[in-house]
Amino acid sequence: MFDENGEKYLDCINNVAHVGHSHPYVIKAATKQMELLNTNSRFLHDNLVQYAQRLTATLPEKLSVCYFVNSGSEANDLALRLARQYRGHQDVITLENAYHGHVTSLIDISPYKFNQLEKDSKKEFVHVAPSPDVYRGKYREDHPDPASAYAEEVKKIIEETQKNGRKIAAFIAESMQSCGGQVIPPVGYFQKAAEYVHAAGGVFIADEVQVGFGRVGKHFWAFQLQGEDFVPDIVTMGKPIGNGHPMSCVVTTREIAEAFGASGLEYFNTFGGNPVSCAIGMAVLEVIEKEDLQRNATRVGNYLLELLTEQKQKHPLVGDIRGVGLFVGVDLVKDQQKRTPATAEALQLIYKLKEQQILLSADGPHRNILKFKPPMCFTMEDAKHVVDKIDVLLTGMYTNEGNSQPESVNESISHINGAACRQENGFYSDKRSVSSKRLRT
Amino acid sequence: MFDENGEKYLDCINNVAHVGHSHPYVIKAATKQMELLNTNSRFLHDNLVQYAQRLTATLPEKLSVCYFVNSGSEANDLALRLARQYRGHQDVITLENAYHGHVTSLIDISPYKFNQLEKDSKKEFVHVAPSPDVYRGKYREDHPDPASAYAEEVKKIIEETQKNGRKIAAFIAESMQSCGGQVIPPVGYFQKAAEYVHAAGGVFIADEVQVGFGRVGKHFWAFQLQGEDFVPDIVTMGKPIGNGHPMSCVVTTREIAEAFGASGLEYFNTFGGNPVSCAIGMAVLEVIEKEDLQRNATRVGNYLLELLTEQKQKHPLVGDIRGVGLFVGVDLVKDQQKRTPATAEALQLIYKLKEQQILLSADGPHRNILKFKPPMCFTMEDAKHVVDKIDVLLTGMYTNEGNSQPESVNESISHINGAACRQENGFYSDKRSVSSKRLRT
Repeated sequence: MFDENGEKYLDCINNVAHVGHSHPYVIKAATKQMELLNTNSRFLHDNLVQYAQRLTATLPEKLSVCYFVNSGSEANDLALRLARQYRGHQDVITLENAYHGHVTSLIDISPYKFNQLEKDSKKEFVHVAPSPDVYRGKYREDHPDPASAYAEEVKKIIEETQKNGRKIAAFIAESMQSCGGQVIPPVGYFQKAAEYVHAAGGVFIADEVQVGFGRVGKHFWAFQLQGEDFVPDIVTMGKPIGNGHPMSCVVTTREIAEAFGASGLEYFNTFGGNPVSCAIGMAVLEVIEKEDLQRNATRVGNYLLELLTEQKQKHPLVGDIRGVGLFVGVDLVKDQQKRTPATAEALQLIYKLKEQQILLSADGPHRNILKFKPPMCFTMEDAKHVVDKIDVLLTGMYTNEGNSQPESVNESISHINGAACRQENGFYSDKRSVSSKRLRT
Repeated sequence: MFDENGEKYLDCINNVAHVGHSHPYVIKAATKQMELLNTNSRFLHDNLVQYAQRLTATLPEKLSVCYFVNSGSEANDLALRLARQYRGHQDVITLENAYHGHVTSLIDISPYKFNQLEKDSKKEFVHVAPSPDVYRGKYREDHPDPASAYAEEVKKIIEETQKNGRKIAAFIAESMQSCGGQVIPPVGYFQKAAEYVHAAGGVFIADEVQVGFGRVGKHFWAFQLQGEDFVPDIVTMGKPIGNGHPMSCVVTTREIAEAFGASGLEYFNTFGGNPVSCAIGMAVLEVIEKEDLQRNATRVGNYLLELLTEQKQKHPLVGDIRGVGLFVGVDLVKDQQKRTPATAEALQLIYKLKEQQILLSADGPHRNILKFKPPMCFTMEDAKHVVDKIDVLLTGMYTNEGNSQPESVNESISHINGAACRQENGFYSDKRSVSSKRLRT
């Protein structure tokens, strides 16, 4: 990426520009279809059918019905509507630190958001299960079977809920939590959770908005990391699907779609599935395949993990390295044993990286987890470049500061934290640069 | 428009392709920006500021803060969040037959939708005021002051609500109801309703998703038909804003935006306000101006009304003609006195028009209102062409059928009605053509 002065930046965070910023193949497809015809969903177009076929071909067979919408939020909202219509149940189990979108119905089920509001912002129909985080969570890497233990927690919630006469419509989880801190659930967790949820008449919604479309390398969808025996009932997509074009999709089973259709309330979405969006979606799928981006994600991702693991051995600030493909988290800690989140240090690091023209972000409930989710064309050289810079900066941080931070650092950090999800969100150049200047004082 | 066999259709309904299908100026702007840079809302871009300035320049001064989102639904959902955050109130007054969008929170406030569900689908916090329809509503053209009478109904609802200890967050109304039956509220109604709503601590949301961007001709926004003394607190936009590109916007006052910001919960929208969407939005504004499309809307709209009024004098099936600019409704009735909705006839007419390669639709609670909202480049010749065809078809309907319809017509109509908002929604070529074949038997 280049800023307004032509300065070059290495983008380590943009999972929206999935196949690369301004990819010419995608632009060509968009322009060609725009010149021919764009209509809204009043009219059928072959692109809709062709794209639905291509997209469902990447998924297990039973996921066969597509609803095209315009954003991850629209997708997750529709997923909830599908789940609730299916058996008439209302309650939702969501994960600690989860983020599922910005519309009213999704803030309700996103602890990452509603925990920022006043106390008691959790609605009665929402139940929060522990995040399946084996580094910071309730059951950790030393637990003999964290997958079962976390699933057991879901079972407990279901039992409790049923005791109170309530009924579970859905369990929703990001296939890997991103805002929640680059959390990769232990293998087998989804299967077991799904079993309990199904027994209660609910459905399993896998939110792939952040992590889908080959990012994990060896699979096209992150939920597939759980094993071939796991198939969600609903999959929601978003960010990378159109390489920046506003579009998204919900895919579900025929059974759930038919129950939704039987409500008599038709689903209408003006822009959803328009011929231009479908052409763009197809072009993105084609680029992923033609440029072998999944293999690149595996190759570069593995190399990045390897380089970062060397950093872990070198710098006590690095508590945990986790990742798969081009989805990687670096958990910074002040104390390796207590795993105390190194929030200030994480922020300082990303400010300093930005000065060196590298865009990285920190997230998670303590904002101490460095978050790598670069465009899928990220190279070995890019990986080496960013880790070398991190190495130098980490070394400098120990030398210059130790445990004593100047007052102004804490000040500016609380200012940034006050801005909530800013680092995921918004206005990078604005607030960030103000604060990074302060950090240098 | 052309179908897959190259057959030409006259589009009388597509208010999404606002400045004309595949307008080259808009495509050029889109392509140029796509080639340069598209990012999500993590990054600022000049287009965002420039577009916000251009858009707010069309609005009264106090409407100065823009939130860019991806669809009319996202816009209305955010408008509700803004309204609720403003004073912490929760309840919403909406109009009979209103449609505000497809996400969970908006189906709740859209009688057009929730009335299709089982009984008692209306939520406790939703209050439905009578539609300010002076042809079919509670107070009609013979009432001395329908604006005040309808506003009085809003006042009554507020009083009732307050008696029950509830508090009004917002009154939301489409500036003109489209799905609800091309309803134009009497001048002065919004001012008076707003006065009562403000006194109760609520805000006035004008939904311009269907009708904004110069469609009414003499004004850029349909709420401006109420007079210069009326300024809503929040305006939501959608469909025409990007000529088919998925984008939309919420504009509000600094005061409401600041109260929202003070919640500590930041608003983040991945695709909203991306540089490509902003470039497209600007191009649409420029085309409206350069091609003088507002004047065209007035000129052609007036001519269309004139031609349709001649039809009213000729055909007893035509009960009411109403419209402004290129937003026109034709209310078909079986009985001029009783105003019995001529639902079957309206459907038959639009099927037959489609056979003649004219796309028109019927809507409203009884699906008997012909709905004109063509692209803004609609010509005098187009208007003449469609009304001439309607004239011939109406004449034919009297001659051939009288009051006795063949059984098969009713059958196919109930089939279509079963598909709910299909005529607004979806899959025109599919179900429609099946049914129109049945109609010919």
